[in-house]
Amino acid sequence: MPKGKYSLLETVGFPADLKRLDKLQLPEICREVRDFIIDKVSENPGHFGASLGVVELTVALHYVYNTPYDKLVWDVGHQAYAHKILTGRRKLFANNRRYHGISGFPKMAESEYDAFGTGHSSTSISAALGLAVAAKMQGEQRHVVAIIGDGSMTGGLAFEGLNNAGIEKSNLLVILNDNNMAIDPSVGALSEYLTKITTSQVYNRVKTEVWNRTERMKSIRRFLQKTIIAIKSSTLRQSNLFESLNFRYFGPIDGHDVTKLVGTLEMLKNIPGPKLLHVITVKGKGYKPAEENQTLWHAPGTFDRTTGELLCTHKSGQPPLYQHVFGETIVELAEKNEKIIGITPAMPTGSSLNIMMEKMPDRAFDVGIAEQHAVTFSAGLAAAGKIPFCNIYSSFMQRGYDSIIHDVALQNLHVVFCLDRSGLVGEDGATHHGAYDIAFLRCIPNMVVAAPMNEVELRNMMYTAQLPQLQRPFAIRYPRGNGVTERWRRPFEEVPVGKARLVRSGSHAAVLSLGHAGNFVAQATERLEQEGIAIMHYDMRFAKPVDEEVLHEVAKLFTRVVTVEDGAIVGGMGSAVAEFFAENGYHVQVIRLGIPDRFVGHGAMAQLQAECGFDADGIYKTLKELLHDED
Amino acid sequence: MPKGKYSLLETVGFPADLKRLDKLQLPEICREVRDFIIDKVSENPGHFGASLGVVELTVALHYVYNTPYDKLVWDVGHQAYAHKILTGRRKLFANNRRYHGISGFPKMAESEYDAFGTGHSSTSISAALGLAVAAKMQGEQRHVVAIIGDGSMTGGLAFEGLNNAGIEKSNLLVILNDNNMAIDPSVGALSEYLTKITTSQVYNRVKTEVWNRTERMKSIRRFLQKTIIAIKSSTLRQSNLFESLNFRYFGPIDGHDVTKLVGTLEMLKNIPGPKLLHVITVKGKGYKPAEENQTLWHAPGTFDRTTGELLCTHKSGQPPLYQHVFGETIVELAEKNEKIIGITPAMPTGSSLNIMMEKMPDRAFDVGIAEQHAVTFSAGLAAAGKIPFCNIYSSFMQRGYDSIIHDVALQNLHVVFCLDRSGLVGEDGATHHGAYDIAFLRCIPNMVVAAPMNEVELRNMMYTAQLPQLQRPFAIRYPRGNGVTERWRRPFEEVPVGKARLVRSGSHAAVLSLGHAGNFVAQATERLEQEGIAIMHYDMRFAKPVDEEVLHEVAKLFTRVVTVEDGAIVGGMGSAVAEFFAENGYHVQVIRLGIPDRFVGHGAMAQLQAECGFDADGIYKTLKELLHDED
Repeated sequence: MPKGKYSLLETVGFPADLKRLDKLQLPEICREVRDFIIDKVSENPGHFGASLGVVELTVALHYVYNTPYDKLVWDVGHQAYAHKILTGRRKLFANNRRYHGISGFPKMAESEYDAFGTGHSSTSISAALGLAVAAKMQGEQRHVVAIIGDGSMTGGLAFEGLNNAGIEKSNLLVILNDNNMAIDPSVGALSEYLTKITTSQVYNRVKTEVWNRTERMKSIRRFLQKTIIAIKSSTLRQSNLFESLNFRYFGPIDGHDVTKLVGTLEMLKNIPGPKLLHVITVKGKGYKPAEENQTLWHAPGTFDRTTGELLCTHKSGQPPLYQHVFGETIVELAEKNEKIIGITPAMPTGSSLNIMMEKMPDRAFDVGIAEQHAVTFSAGLAAAGKIPFCNIYSSFMQRGYDSIIHDVALQNLHVVFCLDRSGLVGEDGATHHGAYDIAFLRCIPNMVVAAPMNEVELRNMMYTAQLPQLQRPFAIRYPRGNGVTERWRRPFEEVPVGKARLVRSGSHAAVLSLGHAGNFVAQATERLEQEGIAIMHYDMRFAKPVDEEVLHEVAKLFTRVVTVEDGAIVGGMGSAVAEFFAENGYHVQVIRLGIPDRFVGHGAMAQLQAECGFDADGIYKTLKELLHDED
Repeated sequence: MPKGKYSLLETVGFPADLKRLDKLQLPEICREVRDFIIDKVSENPGHFGASLGVVELTVALHYVYNTPYDKLVWDVGHQAYAHKILTGRRKLFANNRRYHGISGFPKMAESEYDAFGTGHSSTSISAALGLAVAAKMQGEQRHVVAIIGDGSMTGGLAFEGLNNAGIEKSNLLVILNDNNMAIDPSVGALSEYLTKITTSQVYNRVKTEVWNRTERMKSIRRFLQKTIIAIKSSTLRQSNLFESLNFRYFGPIDGHDVTKLVGTLEMLKNIPGPKLLHVITVKGKGYKPAEENQTLWHAPGTFDRTTGELLCTHKSGQPPLYQHVFGETIVELAEKNEKIIGITPAMPTGSSLNIMMEKMPDRAFDVGIAEQHAVTFSAGLAAAGKIPFCNIYSSFMQRGYDSIIHDVALQNLHVVFCLDRSGLVGEDGATHHGAYDIAFLRCIPNMVVAAPMNEVELRNMMYTAQLPQLQRPFAIRYPRGNGVTERWRRPFEEVPVGKARLVRSGSHAAVLSLGHAGNFVAQATERLEQEGIAIMHYDMRFAKPVDEEVLHEVAKLFTRVVTVEDGAIVGGMGSAVAEFFAENGYHVQVIRLGIPDRFVGHGAMAQLQAECGFDADGIYKTLKELLHDED
């Protein structure tokens, strides 16, 4: 056996190697996997706490189940690092989340062990049920396991999955990984309910007395294991939400006792039908700073593993995050306008709504992972005269789409949608890029779709959106990451809805940009200016309504126009421009830069922008080619 | 008091009038309301069974609560006819669902008594919570009541609402109207659970013995009412799903005993916090044929109220419904391709998937009202090698949007989406028009978006979508209602993906159509042909990918093109055409006909098509004007 820090882990390339280990070696392999994750993630940033919390569970699952024949479906996928490391990707893990490296989430195209790709929450039960039903049809004796956190369980899709799985007699095991956390602490009635179960006397009595008394008597312990679970199950059955939905409920059990997990899973393999195993874990387990501040260490960036010091903190003298500007600005506005309410579905820290939640706890709501509810709840508030700012990441807003149309826009309610992380998001990759929002919002009547080019514009758009004369749905999309100016906290100014802003005058060609990408245009046109080429640049500010006056002007002056947006070019702002020119019979060629019609992977934001061709260099080149063609 | 059939009802214009009645008169007013609904709906078709089922509940609610100050939020809204009749719209009810008449659903713009508009399911709890939280903030002692069916309760949004409402201490009452039906019978674990509660001995004992024994002792009865509910509540609390979510659970009680309902609601007014009252009703109550075949009588069309004979049945010699063609065709295909699975979220009859469910029960699934799950479950099946045909009404597919992107398209899975009721749907109106699907699907990479011009094309598109060489997400959108030919069952032919079909040659102008609306184009061009004007007409068949060869050809021949589609023109097929011309630098004016950028109301399909200007007459006029301009 090789020596060294990871002497045991180095013998385990795949689950087959893991299965060769003695059960007594499992705690050691867990230690090494955990150490490996801490080592690697401290250097190459990624999701941290979630994976540390399921090391034992992951080892136990691959030890007991016959993967990849048996299928593991990880919900969200933040927690799948141990799974990746144990399924042939240990060496690739140094390039986790990097451009052309492995994905930070399970991905079917990457490994046959990734039974179903993910990134968004609450999909695992439905997907696993699909795999299980297909297995039953094909006569396969396959086990299918969905591993889902208590946070994800609040998403309506998870409930829909349970409701359907409860009547399908498929061989499905749902493991509820209960750490009382999403990225921020879990909220909602379900979360309180799970805490009640976990802290109930029944559970504790069974767990401590019976279990500990048999510590050294292996055979009795095995016998009791079955009994205990049966007792607990029947004791709790009467009061159990999951049993109400036809799931046999087992647990809760300690998710950091790998031996017990293995025993329990082995037993569960023999129980047919839908089952739920409630496992209690600690997010960040085994790395003290992460256990102590679980939200901060969800995805901490690089850090010194010895001291626990974070190395990626915000430096002064840098422009602020758009997120921070949102968080500060909503408080400023809410102090002046008592109608304003803040709403986030489980992203208080990520969105910075936590600033308002601290200062105005009665007016800011974390509704849990529940995007549909966040939107329809906002609609209810607006119907009663409030002005909710509903902050949802662009890619998660896809889940609230019907609520936007049916509950907000159709009733023309005054809800302000703040679409955080619009456009490319970088290392989180394809599941998280907010690519489609312009296209899917632009087709909805009554909607305003705005995007700020900088922090000052973001503030002014937020200010404008809540003005009493507006009284209509107003979406503001802005990207992940830093803005462009330190001097962002300026007095509010109204932004005329549907009015573009001239950034630079010019006569050689015209560029129409939307949002932060306008800064790349500014860089490109600056460079061209130095070459004696004058480009007219408008920051469109609104994808809907578009500034028709400006478009008429541009169409009369130019035969070629470049549009730039950090969003899907199919149906996006450039498409609105093309629609306008076509409708009005203008002869203008429109070159649309943005996210092309394919799924873009992960990597640094700049790498992805370059790949898509709308970074400063790409825009510069497009303009040069266009002008060259015209010569 | 006026005499006649509706002598009591005629004295009740508004809830204030209702409140003036003696409690003993309530059964009589219920009888008259029910009679009135039967009378009116037999002549002017609408939703029938749901409203009959809640007559007593509606009367009790308006009798007890101070509407419109107190807020009633009806889920879906099929059941709101009694509510409309009792809130100032009795005389308008003759024009229910008619063009410029009142809406078949609650609608805020129509009445202050309609606290929140609806049409889609499962929104009521979230919206009501918004109203209740706003009331609390404003210091209003307002009661807010959500009335939701057991079918709607399976939608994930409802669960998200419960989960959030359980921790908000707002004054919210959820009434679970349990009739064990959606449009088709309710399915899922929740439905089985509710049946268990309802048939449990505890409930029956309490209900029959205690209650009936006190029949004539009013004061004791009132006292016991409280006690009974408390007993029931505490007996069931341990085993109750809703209590798990921090709702105080009351019931189940008989939803057709108006006196008891009034007593119970009066008592509940004094209990603060989130509460759920479980009410048992019979869909179609009081009209025998409707009680006996609840699915058929959900929305039966006109009927003879004396005999119960339906008058709107399908006549032979008429082209079939697109729905029927789908239902027959999937069975034909599934018989040849064992990979094919059929999936519907609670619309087996409406979609005609019930044909497959009868013939191949193991391969066709009704997953309940759960569009997200329907799509992600399909993705799971496809990941295991199946080819699911996931049939969802276009406007409901808005709810599965994230699942389409994240679970299906990103993984390029072979799921066939059949988007029934795409485009304008007629009398159901704004909430149900399938207006946005072309726009919201066209921006998704990997997707094919097809629309058949007739039944034969629908069959061939379904055939093409399941061919093994396809292996990608494939959406087929088709409208509600009849096709165009009796001779639809022809041998299958592959439709080349992305290829348009020349319908008519011509040189004066070009029309590019998508889907069934192509038939209106054909009528218009036929008429023009008779006037000596030859219009080139292509049935594009695909909004994505568009036929670039044809577009090049058209752009070279014409300077003006009309596009026609039964979908939103913003971002639709016409937009794809405009994008293509703009990108390629063609000088072609594109006049886009379709659903304009506003919410279109309800009325007969032909009326709405005419209003939008894409019926045969509208297309004819557009072409005439265009040719006149060119002269």
